[in-house]
Amino acid sequence: MGFTRSRFLGGKPSKAPLLLPFLLTVLLVGSQGDGGAMDNGATERIAEESHRQDSAYLLIFIMLLTLTILTIWLFKHRRFRFLHETGLAMIYGLLVGVILRFGIHAPQSMSDVILGCAVNGSPATLLVNVSGRFYEYTLKGEVGQGKGHQVQDDEMLRKVTFDPEVFFNILLPPIIFHAGYSLKRRHFFRNIGSILAYAFIGTVISCFVIGLIMYGFVSFMKVVGQLDGDFYFTDCLFFGAIVSATDPVTVLAIFNELKVDVDLYALLFGESVLNDAVAIVLSSSIVAYQPAGDNSHSFEAMAMLKSFGVFLGVFSGSFALGVVTGVVTALVTKFTKLRDFPLLETALFFLMSWSTFLLAEACGFTGVVAVLFCGITQAHYTYNNLSPDSQDRTKQLFELLNFLAENFIFSYMGLTLFSFQSHVFNPLFIVGAFVAVFLGRAANIYPLSFLLNLGRKNKIGYNFQHVMMFAGLRGAMTFALSIRDTATYARQMMFSTTLLIVFFTVWICGGGTTPMLSFMSIPVGVDSDQDNANSGALDGSQRRSTKHESAWPFRIWYNFDHNYLKPLLTHSGPPLTATLPACCGPLARCLTSPQAYENEGQLHDDDSDFILNDASVSSMYADVTVSTDASGSRTVNPKHSSTARAGGGVGSFDEGLDHELSVAEHEVAIRGTRLVLPMDDPVEAPTTVTLPPPPSPPRSEPHRHRL
Amino acid sequence: MGFTRSRFLGGKPSKAPLLLPFLLTVLLVGSQGDGGAMDNGATERIAEESHRQDSAYLLIFIMLLTLTILTIWLFKHRRFRFLHETGLAMIYGLLVGVILRFGIHAPQSMSDVILGCAVNGSPATLLVNVSGRFYEYTLKGEVGQGKGHQVQDDEMLRKVTFDPEVFFNILLPPIIFHAGYSLKRRHFFRNIGSILAYAFIGTVISCFVIGLIMYGFVSFMKVVGQLDGDFYFTDCLFFGAIVSATDPVTVLAIFNELKVDVDLYALLFGESVLNDAVAIVLSSSIVAYQPAGDNSHSFEAMAMLKSFGVFLGVFSGSFALGVVTGVVTALVTKFTKLRDFPLLETALFFLMSWSTFLLAEACGFTGVVAVLFCGITQAHYTYNNLSPDSQDRTKQLFELLNFLAENFIFSYMGLTLFSFQSHVFNPLFIVGAFVAVFLGRAANIYPLSFLLNLGRKNKIGYNFQHVMMFAGLRGAMTFALSIRDTATYARQMMFSTTLLIVFFTVWICGGGTTPMLSFMSIPVGVDSDQDNANSGALDGSQRRSTKHESAWPFRIWYNFDHNYLKPLLTHSGPPLTATLPACCGPLARCLTSPQAYENEGQLHDDDSDFILNDASVSSMYADVTVSTDASGSRTVNPKHSSTARAGGGVGSFDEGLDHELSVAEHEVAIRGTRLVLPMDDPVEAPTTVTLPPPPSPPRSEPHRHRL
Repeated sequence: MGFTRSRFLGGKPSKAPLLLPFLLTVLLVGSQGDGGAMDNGATERIAEESHRQDSAYLLIFIMLLTLTILTIWLFKHRRFRFLHETGLAMIYGLLVGVILRFGIHAPQSMSDVILGCAVNGSPATLLVNVSGRFYEYTLKGEVGQGKGHQVQDDEMLRKVTFDPEVFFNILLPPIIFHAGYSLKRRHFFRNIGSILAYAFIGTVISCFVIGLIMYGFVSFMKVVGQLDGDFYFTDCLFFGAIVSATDPVTVLAIFNELKVDVDLYALLFGESVLNDAVAIVLSSSIVAYQPAGDNSHSFEAMAMLKSFGVFLGVFSGSFALGVVTGVVTALVTKFTKLRDFPLLETALFFLMSWSTFLLAEACGFTGVVAVLFCGITQAHYTYNNLSPDSQDRTKQLFELLNFLAENFIFSYMGLTLFSFQSHVFNPLFIVGAFVAVFLGRAANIYPLSFLLNLGRKNKIGYNFQHVMMFAGLRGAMTFALSIRDTATYARQMMFSTTLLIVFFTVWICGGGTTPMLSFMSIPVGVDSDQDNANSGALDGSQRRSTKHESAWPFRIWYNFDHNYLKPLLTHSGPPLTATLPACCGPLARCLTSPQAYENEGQLHDDDSDFILNDASVSSMYADVTVSTDASGSRTVNPKHSSTARAGGGVGSFDEGLDHELSVAEHEVAIRGTRLVLPMDDPVEAPTTVTLPPPPSPPRSEPHRHRL
Repeated sequence: MGFTRSRFLGGKPSKAPLLLPFLLTVLLVGSQGDGGAMDNGATERIAEESHRQDSAYLLIFIMLLTLTILTIWLFKHRRFRFLHETGLAMIYGLLVGVILRFGIHAPQSMSDVILGCAVNGSPATLLVNVSGRFYEYTLKGEVGQGKGHQVQDDEMLRKVTFDPEVFFNILLPPIIFHAGYSLKRRHFFRNIGSILAYAFIGTVISCFVIGLIMYGFVSFMKVVGQLDGDFYFTDCLFFGAIVSATDPVTVLAIFNELKVDVDLYALLFGESVLNDAVAIVLSSSIVAYQPAGDNSHSFEAMAMLKSFGVFLGVFSGSFALGVVTGVVTALVTKFTKLRDFPLLETALFFLMSWSTFLLAEACGFTGVVAVLFCGITQAHYTYNNLSPDSQDRTKQLFELLNFLAENFIFSYMGLTLFSFQSHVFNPLFIVGAFVAVFLGRAANIYPLSFLLNLGRKNKIGYNFQHVMMFAGLRGAMTFALSIRDTATYARQMMFSTTLLIVFFTVWICGGGTTPMLSFMSIPVGVDSDQDNANSGALDGSQRRSTKHESAWPFRIWYNFDHNYLKPLLTHSGPPLTATLPACCGPLARCLTSPQAYENEGQLHDDDSDFILNDASVSSMYADVTVSTDASGSRTVNPKHSSTARAGGGVGSFDEGLDHELSVAEHEVAIRGTRLVLPMDDPVEAPTTVTLPPPPSPPRSEPHRHRL
């Protein structure tokens, strides 16, 4: 046992004990041990000097971001679309990395004295007594063997290296929350089945395909003698999991600008948002896969099952926590008059959303996943309770946080290609990885699309499939997952390779999106209102009925949500007194907000996105009426439903259309409700239709449900 | 030299080498060294456990803040004014502190093995080799002697203790920036002389008075034998400096709500904003006071001079940096069309403001001070270049950050009373401190007010003075300064005492503000428009001429600012082509924004605060016209000037008034300009007056200046 006095460089501990560290903080490792005994003043001076250097290095990043912003402006100003801001941030990061690496040479002031000392443990805190003075040291983590002697020459590069946990605990949460909060729910829910298939099944397929291919490559490399360290099958699977997380930013920014078909947008966005969550949980489950005994890299059914259990447990736990905090926030904002004070409201919203993350982490779940579902819940319920001022504030706040975090991560990525000290670039592995990533993505998209198209009448065309294949960029999440642990040889090789994959996909695939879209003749400039009309080549009514069939769990959920959850959690929707059975009268009255009664009259006043959302869903029901009941309403319905859908965009629309929509919605909603259980009491249905919309049309509905 | 394996508790290092740590991060010290040899898995599990605990403890704070927000809402809802949100946050913090301290007992798992080891230095990073595994330790700082053996029982309390640098590098900057950014410039500049006097001279007086009184007390305590450690005169002065920083939040929140006299508001707000900066720099200068040789606590002229030099250097350096980054931001926002993209603009604004802090810290200046002046500059120039959307966004962003940071600090203060491990409550010292703080404040306010009243015709009445005396609360800045260094006995005693002072002033003085105002018969419910009319009992015209006389350096500055800086840095003001001498024509044309020419026509369209600001200053000039030139314009002028002032509030006003003001301003501005140099060419003056306002009235001005 020896007490080694040396410097720790490069390889980071797999999980730093100091966590949730802010971007500012963790310019890794204190440094400046000038050696020799120091007195109090000297220690202080060193601390001060360190503080100044840290500030200076952080300033580099701020300047990088500033530069990026100005260049982005120039690009947007000149309508130059081939390079997205994230790609730009990476380029600037690269340049600064090159300068730091090759341009500036810091004087070496190393003193690698190794002192022997008898210690038989590694406590969290050490007190070192030097000539009667005590210095405190805290445990950073374990260092990979052999690292201790590896002396890097450039200290500065080490200083611009952040603790990888920064990415997970500071930078990713706002990005992921923003993704959830800005999800366009209407198109998302319309394609929910396909999105879930791509995100869950697809990511698992991709993970295993990449893992298997990489295992083949690695085995080959072992035979050829190209591999300098261990690389197990679990490592391959882990690699598969981390590179299966696709990043929405670049492609979707372009899609948004070009107004690409909304269904394609929804599929890609929904997939990339959800598969981030899947990839995180999947990778942590793979890490948790540890067969009993010493034989730690063989296959074992029990361990496999345990990993699967971990996956399910962590995912559902995070999901539940996210939803619960979202619901609590909705309840709090509903039952207090906090909306009179937008500042308080915004602060509460921010704190509650943040507490989701902390709560999940404290419970051992995954904060980032919880935050995603919290974001979706907040958007679905809480957003409706906020004052208009707070709605703007929260949106803008998270938009800003997202923007800063994203560009920070990407510029850091560029920088890290040169500043990271333990790169392992293995040409064979890199080639293998590119092939595997390509095939993994293909194995996700094409077979799943084929299967989905069997059930889906609104077929996902080949051009859509090619674009989805092409648009599978890897970004922030992949980077954060791969930099989290770079302690072993295998992980270092993975990290370096991942970095190259991110560069390639962001620059080549991201930059090629616009040409790709025109090459694939994807309709561009689509107003989201006319989306369905433009996806042509499909039989309208047939598609609609399919949608009905495939969406039945969603429909049950929609009814429940619309009749009970929304009235309970928000000011919108029908009053609970109308939807709950009569026996719950007093409770319903107490839980229904006064606004809900007014809503009945003027239907969801300040909640335009929701009107449209509802209208869209309702129009689906109306379509159903066409296909099954196919009576005289045939001629009336399509008009209504198309009107409803035509106004379905989130963009601007005038008051007149709004009112028309409300009426249309009510009518079709009633028809739809009738349709869900068409054989129950066909006599009662017509009376429901003739009821005037405002007072309490869905009154009889719960009764029917209970029939 | 021994290698002590033990736990570090309580006393914090004087300057942590890891800095700028986010609130999340630095739940101080890793802990959980369960002793004994650990394998890799165990280390990881410990790190994970630590992460979970940290999240849980941070969650406590988030919950505290949430609770505070809800209670604040209740208070505001019920118009309950005796307890401000900060006071409330402290109470909740106290309660949680009590629960943590006495309610929950964590099991003790201590292993205080002390291991001997020969080390002759304290490097920044230690690598400990335990059975072939390397563990990395980083230097936290030096520990006060004797601390090493002091074993505290409650580990949990230690876990909820943040690194004090968090306050300085994360929480204070947004608070201070917001103070600068939200400064009501009109009233501030009107009282600039008095504010500077209170902030600079007053704070220095207060610091020395408190220091001297405390030195008396401490000497007495030494004689009585009540003092257990060293307490030098520099310590007393340091104490004086930190408790001289008054906090605006509580009182000003009430003032704002009650619409108290704007001059009183401006005096208090201006003083408390600026004296924070003075107190920081003063305290660091006192720390820098180190006489040569070993005789480190005697008086020495050279060291004193050096300290004074440090004060001047740090203050002016920080000031310059803050202003420079503000100006750069203004230029960037002016010369790019960034305003088309509010998100980019807001991000740039945020990053530039943050970079001020980092730049100042990197240069060895004080970031917090730089940020204050940056905030003022941004408000004065950049704000006018921002798009209306960005103006809202930036205001709301910093409002939110300020709110969160402030309440976090105050709830932490409450908590720390019980959770801090090294409190030294010395009754004599506490009594002495309260007396000293009271007398120090009195020595600041009353003599200075007397002196200022000699020069000021708009006398600061006794009731105003009493309120200013009473409203000298101590808050976030005092706390942050005192917790920054709690290594020595003297500093611990100061910290504990400071905490009590903050509690007392926030609860008693803060809560007593409303009764105090009515007792002192301070006019409440004053519309800021009619401020001057209501401060009655003063001779109007006499006051005006005094204002003219006392404000001459400000007037020169105003002319320079209005004619050159504002046109150069913003879209408002007269075009530079009109104000610069003809020889600079091409340069002026290139620097003047197209909007400036339009401004000439419709004068400062989207910049209402500025119109009013200008109008107010101009009306001052108009008054001057009355007192010196006192000709026929006597009857015309007061009307104009009173109109201008009547519209001077920042509140709402209609377009008509706006236009009237513009005209009034133009007229009086011209008269004012004439007045500055009344004997130059009295013949030309009337022709200037008769010029129609829009095209280019100040054209001839530079010529006159050069006469």
